[in-house]
Amino acid sequence: MDLQENKILNMIKPTEEPLAEQAAGQISQYVIEQHIESGDKLPNEFELAAQLNVGRGTIREAVKILVARNVLQIRRGKGTYVAKHTGVIEDPLGFAFVNNDIKLAKDLLEMRMVIETWVVRIAAERATEVDLQKITEACNKVRNQLEQHINHLEADEKFHIALARCTHNLVVPKLIPIIVYSVQQLGPMNFQAKDYNIKMRKKTIMAHEKILKAILSRDGEAAAKAMLEHLKDNQKVIELYEKEKQ
Amino acid sequence: MDLQENKILNMIKPTEEPLAEQAAGQISQYVIEQHIESGDKLPNEFELAAQLNVGRGTIREAVKILVARNVLQIRRGKGTYVAKHTGVIEDPLGFAFVNNDIKLAKDLLEMRMVIETWVVRIAAERATEVDLQKITEACNKVRNQLEQHINHLEADEKFHIALARCTHNLVVPKLIPIIVYSVQQLGPMNFQAKDYNIKMRKKTIMAHEKILKAILSRDGEAAAKAMLEHLKDNQKVIELYEKEKQ
Repeated sequence: MDLQENKILNMIKPTEEPLAEQAAGQISQYVIEQHIESGDKLPNEFELAAQLNVGRGTIREAVKILVARNVLQIRRGKGTYVAKHTGVIEDPLGFAFVNNDIKLAKDLLEMRMVIETWVVRIAAERATEVDLQKITEACNKVRNQLEQHINHLEADEKFHIALARCTHNLVVPKLIPIIVYSVQQLGPMNFQAKDYNIKMRKKTIMAHEKILKAILSRDGEAAAKAMLEHLKDNQKVIELYEKEKQ
Repeated sequence: MDLQENKILNMIKPTEEPLAEQAAGQISQYVIEQHIESGDKLPNEFELAAQLNVGRGTIREAVKILVARNVLQIRRGKGTYVAKHTGVIEDPLGFAFVNNDIKLAKDLLEMRMVIETWVVRIAAERATEVDLQKITEACNKVRNQLEQHINHLEADEKFHIALARCTHNLVVPKLIPIIVYSVQQLGPMNFQAKDYNIKMRKKTIMAHEKILKAILSRDGEAAAKAMLEHLKDNQKVIELYEKEKQ
């Protein structure tokens, strides 16, 4: 690659931003503009250092920054690769740093009521045959795990993501893990997971199947209603937790 | 602090996770559980190394990871502090790594229509007098910048965040920058910023003032309608860009 022709890896200019942070930005841009896909290998340290006109130490620091942001992944003895869910990190909004657990859990549920009732309404319209198969499988998996008394939270999240995928909107499946997953790390949901009694287990299975059935029969209104009921059940769990804590 | 009594900084156990990543997790937990707030100083390297029973090199690596995730901030010669918007990073969902700009811009707008029509409807109910004052100021700032032909995108984002704050929901003001800001980095919005003609400028001012007026008079329905119109104008800009690109 000719250095002069290469618009992507511009030479780093001295600014207030630390050199490693600048190099990290340039590498990110390189990944994007060269369409290097998830799982693809990056050029080695020497090559990147030459291209960016910085030392290998800076490249190494930049790579560490991008590993921390889940853009890159180091495979020992193999090299540096583009991460699987590029750029998406756990708890991306820093909910773990909000001090009021119960308020956060309630507010996340309020957002879910807005977003997920929309999701299932649109899913009922847009879902393809393959989508319908996938949400049916995801729903069955949650049922199986609940019946076997296995922790179902991961399968539960996958069911909600599968619903979001039916909208064919690129953004909403990325939002779901934030609003579903983060709340599981909070007190109320840990409480829920631990004390998930037979009644709650049955309620979850029935709610999911009601949502599924409505989407399968392309009834968006019924799907939205079933989703709202389901989320209101979760709300009751949080309120119960709040009362116990007082 | 007695090491045995200290449940927060558990000694690091050998697992498959790299040591620095484990230490980063422990430091995050320490920040959370000790309620160390944004802007507060962290104990120094020596202290942390002793508490976690790892070398100072590992602590240094862990701190770098947390700086990359915007949990910590290093102030040269002063020490390590908890970052201002703890744990919230730019482009947290990795939209920059989605290859289809136009589809992403459209899908972001679709999400905004769902979330922001809800926001203004609820804002009209819940906004306090202080909130109303803040959204009025934010609206005026956008108007001034547009009238002076200054790039208004940052002020625009702040107006939408100010609206979101009126809901008193902790989550939605954190979501707004993701769905508003990221789209600005994309082609369609850069195009919009550059070619923001007089007609579009007037439309934005009028739309914002219509939303503001509806919230001030506590008319949620009118606010939602005005927001939807506003976002549909943005949609038209993207469609125009799409046509030009073909």
